[in-house]
Amino acid sequence: MPIRYFEDFQAGQELPLRTSTITRAEIVAFAAEFDPQPFHLDEAAAAETMLGGLAASGWHTCALFMRMLYHGWLSETASMGSPGVDSLKWLRPVRPDDVLSGHSIVLDITAPKSRPDRGFVRFHHEVENARGDKVMTLENPIMFGRRPSS
Amino acid sequence: MPIRYFEDFQAGQELPLRTSTITRAEIVAFAAEFDPQPFHLDEAAAAETMLGGLAASGWHTCALFMRMLYHGWLSETASMGSPGVDSLKWLRPVRPDDVLSGHSIVLDITAPKSRPDRGFVRFHHEVENARGDKVMTLENPIMFGRRPSS
Repeated sequence: MPIRYFEDFQAGQELPLRTSTITRAEIVAFAAEFDPQPFHLDEAAAAETMLGGLAASGWHTCALFMRMLYHGWLSETASMGSPGVDSLKWLRPVRPDDVLSGHSIVLDITAPKSRPDRGFVRFHHEVENARGDKVMTLENPIMFGRRPSS
Repeated sequence: MPIRYFEDFQAGQELPLRTSTITRAEIVAFAAEFDPQPFHLDEAAAAETMLGGLAASGWHTCALFMRMLYHGWLSETASMGSPGVDSLKWLRPVRPDDVLSGHSIVLDITAPKSRPDRGFVRFHHEVENARGDKVMTLENPIMFGRRPSS
């Protein structure tokens, strides 16, 4: 399959995330292991909070986003990883049986002179549910290798 | 146990995260489910990258941080959740058998006049390994309920 290198990104470009579902069992299992706040574990406890019902840990949504990103387009690139996230917003609850989709938009591109073998591409990512409501947005830089000279 | 409300936080306050370990099997299982980039799955593939060996997904470190935060101090508060993360930095690789510890420092406090039942506390969190190297930092606001009037 074709590999996308640093040179193949341009500002404004839009790349699709792969669609993913999330089940009640997955929400509860992730929360039990990593984020056992009552509103991620128990329907009755969650009903009394501002979430208004069982909702996934925000970190679970992040992990799912990573899977959607990888299978959506990152796996076919010369990605070298990311140093972090500039801004991450959990906008709405993610519910059992939600179908999540989304996309990445290229914000800008930086080619450091000191490292001629790589470059940084900064993205705005959006994840939405089947009703079209944005549930999470984040912005982050990803490092890509440059196209080898042939 | 005593519950910490919004009124009980002050700028500069330091709160400990609970210590946590991470195993090779956990690193590979998380990556296989959520972040199957080769450097999170395979020692030989990882050795050829800038990580220089198998390392946990940054999102796995985030999930572990959440567990360290919850059991460290968040579980004994009137937390109402968080709207997101302002800044998240993956500074160094997290390796098999790393022992992670850390703390949260209160940056500032905001009491919105429109919502007299709650307030926001903004934290700087740090996670380090047993050698004292910071592996991740993040800053985020957490919402807390106010102390009920008696």
